[in-house]
Amino acid sequence: MRIAIVGTGLLGGSFALGLKSATTEHHFIGVDNNKSHANKALELGIVDNIMPFNEAVKASDLIVLATPVNIILNQLTDVLDQMANDAILIDFGSTKEVFCSKVAGHPKRSRYISCHPIAGTENSGPAEAFRSLLRHKQMIICEKEESDPKALQQILDIFALFDSKISYMNPADHDRHIAWVSHLSHISSFALGLTVLNKEKDEKKIFAMAGSGFSSTVRLAKSNSNMWAPIFSQNTHNISEALEAYISQLQDFKKIIDANDEKDSRELMEKANEIRRVLLGIEKS
Amino acid sequence: MRIAIVGTGLLGGSFALGLKSATTEHHFIGVDNNKSHANKALELGIVDNIMPFNEAVKASDLIVLATPVNIILNQLTDVLDQMANDAILIDFGSTKEVFCSKVAGHPKRSRYISCHPIAGTENSGPAEAFRSLLRHKQMIICEKEESDPKALQQILDIFALFDSKISYMNPADHDRHIAWVSHLSHISSFALGLTVLNKEKDEKKIFAMAGSGFSSTVRLAKSNSNMWAPIFSQNTHNISEALEAYISQLQDFKKIIDANDEKDSRELMEKANEIRRVLLGIEKS
Repeated sequence: MRIAIVGTGLLGGSFALGLKSATTEHHFIGVDNNKSHANKALELGIVDNIMPFNEAVKASDLIVLATPVNIILNQLTDVLDQMANDAILIDFGSTKEVFCSKVAGHPKRSRYISCHPIAGTENSGPAEAFRSLLRHKQMIICEKEESDPKALQQILDIFALFDSKISYMNPADHDRHIAWVSHLSHISSFALGLTVLNKEKDEKKIFAMAGSGFSSTVRLAKSNSNMWAPIFSQNTHNISEALEAYISQLQDFKKIIDANDEKDSRELMEKANEIRRVLLGIEKS
Repeated sequence: MRIAIVGTGLLGGSFALGLKSATTEHHFIGVDNNKSHANKALELGIVDNIMPFNEAVKASDLIVLATPVNIILNQLTDVLDQMANDAILIDFGSTKEVFCSKVAGHPKRSRYISCHPIAGTENSGPAEAFRSLLRHKQMIICEKEESDPKALQQILDIFALFDSKISYMNPADHDRHIAWVSHLSHISSFALGLTVLNKEKDEKKIFAMAGSGFSSTVRLAKSNSNMWAPIFSQNTHNISEALEAYISQLQDFKKIIDANDEKDSRELMEKANEIRRVLLGIEKS
């Protein structure tokens, strides 16, 4: 297969590296409007050659969109319009509802498979890609009933090489759930970083005592704004609801702390400890 | 030296294990009102024998208080009253102002050295202790001018075996700074866990897509409520201020997301990215 990797960063690059490590039968074409990323991807062997977007789309059997979600939204119908009739389009974006709406009714809708791999790090760019990133991870597929069954099977066969755990969801459920378990934790982390960075203006040494706990909680604040700003735009309603619940929870916590109510604060934390069950599940997966 | 480890959990246990691995010259007496913890500490070789609190205090050259901060507050003057005149008392609590106030003016104040190791995990109990926990970590010492210089030197010699990085602070600065870089991130994590656990009541599958990013941000929500509730009580004012700033930051973020203002959200995240500098410092240390 000739596979176009559109966006040669962390996710697109790791998909190519992972697939290359499993089989040598594919040829990878890199597309990236960031020239230094494109060159880096070529240099690192992530892709075998570089082509402009339109040429790559026409020349490929599989097109993988791994760009920020605002770019994916623009590229989806362009790709469907231009690609060969028997080519397949997939995307790795963190929102799914706007994409599925965008392609609804397109003559080649059945050649699109709407994917979201639950994998990533706080880093970005081809130099951060690594072949095991997608290994054993969850892969959410939305509106599978709108995709051609044979095309779907071809993609499932590829994901099987990663030992992906496949789940099927409707796009609305996907976007709502991901707001709570991914988008919200990114915002909580960005806001934590900002809060203490602001405090640093008055207290130069505020970070001197920061340790591994702070580091873990604030790690996602390193994430790329070009990737995340469009996600917030495309999933505003769900994120806003999750954020409202989080702020309200923090206000409850603050009231209890202000009232010096150790019994209530202990109870809140014991409830929060139930997260052990969830974390155990993530570690096992 | 005969060293009493009062509280044989993660921190006390790791101190004993670390010191034992550096030198065999000390004898460790375990004190724990949780009998199964005391037995576990003995079984794991963390301590060499178990004694009741009063006996251990009288029999020891160094008493290490590694209990929750409400217990430390009760134990401080008891220990000073009962211990030998040339014995030394240290504590590992995460608050320092109330402790230094409590012992101020005590006839044996100079035998107390107020310590806070910046080290820990979200786990607790002797079974979680490990000898490298305190290795290369920061050790904050408060009000060193109130401690006898020779006693201080004896303690510094012990911390040197851990390659501790010693800093001296006044207790008020310590408690203010630690509220922002440790206590706040614990609350942000507890609240994140609670928020999504609450959502789970209506959406049974909400955690199915949780990945490593969520896991990292919510890790501290596993922390022990018996340790943290008293910390919040002893550092209420500072924590409340930090929490207010955090909530206000989240509200700003929410406004920007609700307004679909990608430019402002991008700017906020780019500011937050500055946290890379801080995290680099923590990783290097």
